[in-house]
Formats: sequence, structure tokens, C-alpha cells
Amino acid sequence: MERKQMSPLEELRHSTAHILAAAVLRLWPDTRLDIGPPTDTGFYYDFDSSTRFTPEDLEKIEAEMNNIIRENQAFVRSEVTREEAIAYFTDRNQPYKVSRVGDIPAGEPISFYQNGEFIDLCAGTHLRYTKQVKAFKLLSIAGAYHRGDEKNAQLQRIYGTAFPSKTELQEYLTMMEEARKRDHRKIGKEMGLFTFDTDQVGPGLPLWLPKGTAMVEELERLAKETEFAAGYQRVRTPHLAKESLYLTSGHLPYYKESMYPPMEFEEDEGGEKVKYYLKAMNCPHHHKIFDAEPRSYRDLPLRLAEYGACYRYEKSGELMGLMRVRSMQMNDAHIYCTEDQFGQEFRAVNEMYLKYFEIFGIKKYLMRLSTHDPEKLGQKFVDEPVLWKKTEEMVRRVLVESGINFVEVPNEAAFYGPKIDVQVWSAIGREFTLATNQVDFAVPARFGLVYTTRENTRETPLCIHRAPLGTHERFIGFLIEHFAGDFPMWLAPEQVRVLAITDEQSEYANHINQSLRQAGFRSTSDHHKDNIGGKIRRGRMDRVPYLLIIGNKEVESGTVTVRSRLNGEEGAFYFDSFMERLHGERSQRKLTVQL
Amino acid sequence: MERKQMSPLEELRHSTAHILAAAVLRLWPDTRLDIGPPTDTGFYYDFDSSTRFTPEDLEKIEAEMNNIIRENQAFVRSEVTREEAIAYFTDRNQPYKVSRVGDIPAGEPISFYQNGEFIDLCAGTHLRYTKQVKAFKLLSIAGAYHRGDEKNAQLQRIYGTAFPSKTELQEYLTMMEEARKRDHRKIGKEMGLFTFDTDQVGPGLPLWLPKGTAMVEELERLAKETEFAAGYQRVRTPHLAKESLYLTSGHLPYYKESMYPPMEFEEDEGGEKVKYYLKAMNCPHHHKIFDAEPRSYRDLPLRLAEYGACYRYEKSGELMGLMRVRSMQMNDAHIYCTEDQFGQEFRAVNEMYLKYFEIFGIKKYLMRLSTHDPEKLGQKFVDEPVLWKKTEEMVRRVLVESGINFVEVPNEAAFYGPKIDVQVWSAIGREFTLATNQVDFAVPARFGLVYTTRENTRETPLCIHRAPLGTHERFIGFLIEHFAGDFPMWLAPEQVRVLAITDEQSEYANHINQSLRQAGFRSTSDHHKDNIGGKIRRGRMDRVPYLLIIGNKEVESGTVTVRSRLNGEEGAFYFDSFMERLHGERSQRKLTVQL
Repeated sequence: MERKQMSPLEELRHSTAHILAAAVLRLWPDTRLDIGPPTDTGFYYDFDSSTRFTPEDLEKIEAEMNNIIRENQAFVRSEVTREEAIAYFTDRNQPYKVSRVGDIPAGEPISFYQNGEFIDLCAGTHLRYTKQVKAFKLLSIAGAYHRGDEKNAQLQRIYGTAFPSKTELQEYLTMMEEARKRDHRKIGKEMGLFTFDTDQVGPGLPLWLPKGTAMVEELERLAKETEFAAGYQRVRTPHLAKESLYLTSGHLPYYKESMYPPMEFEEDEGGEKVKYYLKAMNCPHHHKIFDAEPRSYRDLPLRLAEYGACYRYEKSGELMGLMRVRSMQMNDAHIYCTEDQFGQEFRAVNEMYLKYFEIFGIKKYLMRLSTHDPEKLGQKFVDEPVLWKKTEEMVRRVLVESGINFVEVPNEAAFYGPKIDVQVWSAIGREFTLATNQVDFAVPARFGLVYTTRENTRETPLCIHRAPLGTHERFIGFLIEHFAGDFPMWLAPEQVRVLAITDEQSEYANHINQSLRQAGFRSTSDHHKDNIGGKIRRGRMDRVPYLLIIGNKEVESGTVTVRSRLNGEEGAFYFDSFMERLHGERSQRKLTVQL
Repeated sequence: MERKQMSPLEELRHSTAHILAAAVLRLWPDTRLDIGPPTDTGFYYDFDSSTRFTPEDLEKIEAEMNNIIRENQAFVRSEVTREEAIAYFTDRNQPYKVSRVGDIPAGEPISFYQNGEFIDLCAGTHLRYTKQVKAFKLLSIAGAYHRGDEKNAQLQRIYGTAFPSKTELQEYLTMMEEARKRDHRKIGKEMGLFTFDTDQVGPGLPLWLPKGTAMVEELERLAKETEFAAGYQRVRTPHLAKESLYLTSGHLPYYKESMYPPMEFEEDEGGEKVKYYLKAMNCPHHHKIFDAEPRSYRDLPLRLAEYGACYRYEKSGELMGLMRVRSMQMNDAHIYCTEDQFGQEFRAVNEMYLKYFEIFGIKKYLMRLSTHDPEKLGQKFVDEPVLWKKTEEMVRRVLVESGINFVEVPNEAAFYGPKIDVQVWSAIGREFTLATNQVDFAVPARFGLVYTTRENTRETPLCIHRAPLGTHERFIGFLIEHFAGDFPMWLAPEQVRVLAITDEQSEYANHINQSLRQAGFRSTSDHHKDNIGGKIRRGRMDRVPYLLIIGNKEVESGTVTVRSRLNGEEGAFYFDSFMERLHGERSQRKLTVQL
């Protein structure tokens, strides 16, 4: 039972979900229904049926749904008493619906929505008629537990989507088809970027293969250069700490379920048992580094950066490629600053985002600024009314002044300060949550962090948590889809491949390859027994940005014939001038790719 | 009771330990004695005494030892029965000695050594007369448990050393005095390189501060460049794995005591409990990467490198600064190769060592080649007689041909192959164990690693474990002593500092500083209210390799006056030409330091 005011698109999709349930009941009248809410990209409905739905069943259901739409049934709301609702669903052998009635708090209205013969427990809202559904599609069937709990019955979830027009639906389906082709797990395997060893290493713990590691290290180099220029200082901290640290930070007990369980041992033989936890976040360790020496206003802003590996426990069923993992390496930093410095620091963080978007050819993004609700100070939000107002005002101003695309979401800030979620869209138009910026009023105080002011008083600094490149795992997952594996040269695992036309030129080809490697380029040379056509095909398939073709003509003239992924056959260049071009493209991190 | 054949130096030191015990008994006759073996740098003797020994007591004891030496007592060996030995020490209230008699296996001779009135249970060997001890010194008192077990009584351990001549003793004492001045914990704190937070993070888990992190990252850059040029491929693996991996590798149960205890949880709700361990070594993860795809002879040698963070459990009492830690980041790599490739691969590893020694100005080193004993094949050593002979022969030949300084130690190889321990000496002549190279016949087979040969058969590769730069922790600890904190410019945490003579020049000074930072140099500018003399002194104290002094003359002429740590005042240079020099020194990793 969904209780939020729905947007027009949600209303459309939720109504389509009702039509889906009605169609399933017509086809399999003994089906028991659970719930059918809209989602970000469509809708689903959960069914308990003795029939195991097949893809062919989806076609049958779609046909029946089209009947219902043609019948142009009205959606009619009615209010019932709790007893009526329970009696209605009990009579019809709908135990999940009975259970859902129990979720509705006493005093709230209980409403039914009816279209044709179908009645659902539902808070609404809905379309007026079924014919308003003009473009829908059922997409897939998956298992789902009642109330998401593995202890409950497993249901069959049918996913679908609906759009206001057939054109929009078709665009979405095309995008999803393209997303399937660009699936990061598929391309990651083809390109040898990463692997999992579920049996012996463990699920959700990626092993980065040499080619994936090359990308990870390029991203780190980018971040380190960018952060050095922006006055960050790098630190390194261990991957674990005593329970005590996480009690101070508040991760224990509030975040305990997302952490690996502790390692427990006697610190000294016969001594007390101590628990150590793997770190799920880098903040507590960075706070310790802030606190490692006395700080004065002269030290601020202090910007501590670390590509820290964090470990979080996710249920194995919820793991998904690089997108949902248990180990992740974050492009993390914490900026400790005074209130006066906050605006400028926050602006600089935003500018860093925009710079990265440009480097990666990310054209569409959105920042969601979550703010506090003044009526919930002291409960949902830390009781610092002046600081909230001031900080949110500054954040808002900076976002506007920097021309940042953002929306404001009231009442969704974190307990300890406003936060900014950054959404980006891949080249094919799919949305990803990249990272969160977080202003933190509260935790520095929990750690007793202070600095001496110019007036020799002691103040608690503000702290900005930021991670513009997110985690290696998620960001590379995104980049694989975004570029379909055709990464810009600076980032590509294999940047150049040298192809000799015959064995005659292999010495010169090796020399070219070695020169490239000495200049730090990830170059190889193709030694397969194969004609040049085969070698070029393999180079394209392996997504190498530059293929250098070496025949007798090239050997004689000291040239290379360049075949680039972006422009195809480009003709012959003196090797030195080609190297110069490569150096330029690498140091400027040119996109060298069609998006 | 020591049972090894002693070297002349060990004999000298062990005899001095007997003289120490004899002197203590003369001064405090009720003292109970435990043992007094020689060590690498001297000797000790463990005492249980009601007197708490003070530094003044050490002087008294030394005086009495000199008496015993002057008395020129003979060391006389005699054999006794077990009953006689037990009766002798029981009568004299020497319970630890009685306990030590129990350690001697049945059938082995039990011997006493007597000098003057003093008789000790001792396997020998010894000098002939006490006057042969010509140069000794007692150094310190420390606590030590009987048999190293915290459950036993705590004893007082008196450390001392002895040398064949007074000159050698004096040289040693001078070196130790210099080592104290260069103590990596002291200099590390002064320079802000690292810190520990025993309370909340945990003992033995260093937090690298910004300046230490700069050094860590320079070392990594060096290793990555060197290894890229040598055809290594980098990988990244998680810091933990399932129990199953360590059962296959043999770490469990054999290495379990040195590992952190497991994290245990249900992989899926209601499922079986699974144990995860933090990795103590990177090898098992690398083996998994070897095994992630089918390998052929074309893929070999495959050189997988990772600066992997490992975690080992050490008793908190045994932790010591960066030298004995619980978290360590190793310059690790595993080379998988055929038998035919082994010689060349091993040679290349040695050459990498020699290159590093040159970069760091390490003038004295020694490789200890530990080989197998053919009589212990199948027991102490894996039963591969041909492979042992062949590999050891190859290792030996490569060491000789590369002009490597090495000694051979029979019967001390690892179970699964010959190993090479690399010892280096710091600039003040102190010995450090840097790293171990290990040839591995056995573990690749345990993991079922195979490659397809040219003839289409399946073979198990050899594996070379190597880590020429050891761990960041130990290597930086060594470098701090070696350079006394005066690191070469390329490695120094702060490379350049710009000092304006008065506020008038601060704009130009800032411009110089920013230009240096844009070129990636770790440069700062000194903004203290202070005269130039004070700024220079602070720059020297902070061990900054280059101080650039900016007065009006420099502003007018676009120059900087250079004061280098190596040469002192060098005069004025055009800024551009000084930058060029810095670029050259950095890219060549010049030593720029007096050792």
C-alpha cells in the first residue's frame, strides 16, 4: 500500500500495475497478490502462484492487459473499515493483502481502488480510465521475498514499464537494450578487467586483473594530480580499527549490520578481549589524523585525501558485479575548515566535479541538495538551527553561482548536516548515483576535534566529506557502460598495439613497441600467425584505441600507419610525431572517443 | 642451553655472558639464573633477582667482570649425568636450570662449563681463559619472560656486547649511539611522517601522515616505473578471503598464529557460517589471478605485482615502531615461469635489487642463499631432487655471474624451494633484513596452477616470490636511519621551501612556490613572522633539501638564491634554470645527500 502523493508518471505506472494484477487474476484466478508499486523506471507486482510464469506467459498477460485497457475501465476509489477490508481479502484467500491491511496505522483511512472486476487495497493515486495507458511493456520475472525477508515465502515479481507515449517507451527499451550490450559484467569479462572468485576469495570481493588495474591506477593518478593542485594532502590509514573508534564515530551500533563482524582476540596474552572491525568508511581514521597533533587556524582548511579501501557487508543475494560489492576503494577526502572557509571549500569541490564531468564526457548530471526541516531539529536533525540555515544558504548560493544543475529536497538531509547526492547519466541516458557530498556539524565534536582560533579560543571545525569519483568499483562499472568499453586513450588498458604485416617487419615493430613502453604507454605487439586483416580485426575487438600497422614502406621511411578507433585509417605518420600526439592526448586526458 | 657449533665471535660473547653471570652471583648470591646465549650483536643473560638492577648496578657488575677476567680463569668442560645435573642445581636453588636440564633429549651428553667458582649448564663452546675477553660492555636491562611465555615469571635480562678488540667495540658503540640519534621513531615524530593511535585504532597499525604518505607514494612510483619497464603487470586484490583459500595455500593451520582471528558469519541468512581471514600474504590471491583464465606458454613469464597491504598478528609487546607492525604494505610480486625461464627471471630480479641499492646509496649488502639438504628430501624439503639441484645450481650461477655478494647456508631453505635473504647495511653500518626472495616448487601445484606447453601438455609453473623494497613500513624505517631523515630530494616529504626576506617579497615568493607546485614539487613557503635567519634555521631543522631565499635583488632579476642541504649557500640562479635542475634530479632520482 503506497501512501505518497504520486507524480503523473508514477500514477501511470502504478495504474498499469493494477491492470497487470487484474490480468493475472483473470488468467490464474487462484493467484495471491502482494503489492505493486511504481519504481524509478517502471513498476512491478508480486504474485504467489502455483504456476511458474514463463516469458510466454508474459505475452499472454500483456494481451489480457490490452483487453482491460480496451474495456476502458474507470479507476474508482472507495473507503472501507478495517474489518471490511480484512473480511474482503480473507474471503478471497488473499493472505498477503490481509497482512498489508495490518500495516495501516489506526486512524488512517483504508481505501480500495477498483477497475472492472478487480479491487485492490491501495492508497492511490490513479488515472481515471484504463485507456489512458497508451504504452506499456512487461519486461522480466524475478524472485522476491514477501516483505524482502528471506524467511518469508518467495513470490514471483513481474517487472514492467509504462510511458506516456509509444515513442518514449521505444526510446527506453532501446536504451535498455543498449545497456544490456554494454553490461559492465559482460564487457569486463571480455576485456579481462576484473574477476570474482566466489568459492575461495568470497562473493562481492573483486580481483582486479592487470587491465582493470591499469584503469584503476589511471583514475588514481587523475585524482592525485587534481587533489595535489587543489591543496589536498594524502594520508594512508589501516583497514581496521578497534571497536572503540566506531563507538566514538557512531558506526556502532547504528551501522553495524553493514559492517563485517569483528575479529576478537586478547591484545596481550591473558588480557581483555578486544574487538577489531574492518573499516566501512575512512572518516574515523582521518579524524584521528586531524587529532594527531594540535591544530590552529593556520592549518585550516586541512584537506586529507586517501584512496581508502573500505569493506561493507551486503547480503550475497544483493551483490551485483562491480555495482554492489563488499570491498570498495573510495576517492575519499575530508576537508576540515572554519565556517568562514566553508563556502569557498564547497565551491572548489563542485568545480572539481565539473572538471571530472568534462574529462569523462559526462554531459548530463544533477545534484540533489537534501536540506533539514526546522520543525524536526533535535529529533531527525542535529539541533543547530543557525548552522543549518547558514550552511544550507551557502551551499545553495554556491550551487547557483557555479551554474550547477540542482534540485532541492527538503527534510532528507543527514542527521548531522545537509548532503548533496550527485546523479550522472551515461552516454546512453541511464542514471547512476555517483557520490555524496556531506557537510558534517556533529561528528568532529564527537571526536573532540578542535583548532585554536586567531583569538586563541578553541573551536570545532566543520568537516566536508567528499568523493567525486565515487568508488573505483562503481565508477569503472559506470565508465564501461558510458564508453561501451571504448575508453579514451589515456584510460584504456591497452593503449596502442603494433601490427607487423609480415614477419619481415617484426624487428621494427618490436622496436616501435619498446619505444612506446619506455615512454610509459601500455603498448603491445601482436605476434599471432595471422594476416594483417585478422590482426586489425582482433585489435578492434579488443578495443585498442590505436593500431599501428607496419609494412616495408613504414620500415623504410621510419613511419607508422595509424588506424585509430575514433577516425579509422588515418594514414602514415613519422613515428616521432605520432608519439608527440600520444603524449599530448595523455597529458591532456583527451576524450578521443565518440559518445 | 645452546647446541650449535659457535663461531669465534659467538664463543667470545657467550664466554662473556658466563663471566656476567659469575659476577652477578658474586654480588647477589641468591640470584637465580636462566640462560645466557650470544646474539647477532652481543649477548644477554636472564636473571631472577629480588634486586631490581639499576644502571649503577651495571657499572658494579662490569667492575666485578673485570676482576674475573683479570683472574684469568680457565673454562673447563665436564660431562655429568642427568641426575647429577638436577641434584647440583636443586641444591643451589636454581629452578630454571633444573627446568633447562629437562630440555636435553635423552641420550645426548649433558655438560657443565666451569670458570672459577662458577658452574653453568652449557653445551659450549667457550674460550680457553677469561683473559681472552679484551673488550666488552654491558648495555641495558630489560624485562623478559622465562621461555618467552607471558604466563611464566618475568626475569631481568642484561644485554651486553663483546668484540675481539677495544677499537671494534668502540666503533660498535659509536654506531649504536648514532643509531639512537637516528631512531626512526624519534625522527618520524619530529618530521611528522607517521603516528600510532593505540587506544582507538590499535597497536602496530601505523597511520601515515601527509609527509610520510608522500614518501610512501614516491617509493610506489619508483617500484611501478621499475616494474613496468621490467614487464610486470599490476593487480589489486582484496584484503581478506575465505578460510578455504588459506587451507589450500597451507597458511591454515601452519601460519594461523600469525594471522588475525577470523570474521565469521552466515554468507546467506540461515546458511552455513563462513570464516573470512585478513590476508597475511598476497600470494594466494595472486595464484587465484593466475588461475582466473587458461594460461599457455605464451603467457609466461607472467609477473603479477601489487603493493598489497597485509595484516599479521604480533604480540603487542613485540611491536616496535615501523620495524615490527601488524599492518604492512609489501612491494610484492609473483613471477610464474617455466623451468627454462627461471634463470633469466631470477637474474632480472637481482638486477632490480642492485639498481635499488644504487638509487638509495646502499653500499653494503649480502644475499644469504639457503639451500636444501639432499638427505632430508621428503621430510624437511619437498621431494623434488632434480628440481632442487637444478634450481640451486641456476641461482648460484646467476649470483656469481651478476657479481652479487652472497653466502650459502645449507639446510636452511624453505620446505618448497631455495630462498635468498637480503641483508643491507645502513649508512652507519647497522644491519637490516630487507626482503626475501623465494623459489616455490610446491604451492603452484597445491593451487592446481597449470599452463599449456608448446607441445600441448599441461605443466605446473615455477613461482618466484620477490619484494625488493620489502614493506613500506620497514623500508622507510631503514631509510630514516640510513639518511638520518635527510632524504634525497626526489623522496623528501618537503622538497623545496621558499623564504621571503621581508613581506615585501612575499608575492614573488608565493608565485615561485605555486610554479613549483604546478610542476608537481612538494613545495611550501614560510609565512612565519620571523627574520630570514630564523626561517633558514627552521628549514634546516625540518630537513628541507632546498631553501630558496627571496630578497629584492631576486625579485628584480627573476632569480632565487639557493641554499641546499648538500652544499650550503650556492648563490643565485635564474628560477627557470633551477627548475630544470630540480626536474633532472627528480627524474634521475639523484642521491643529493652525503652518506
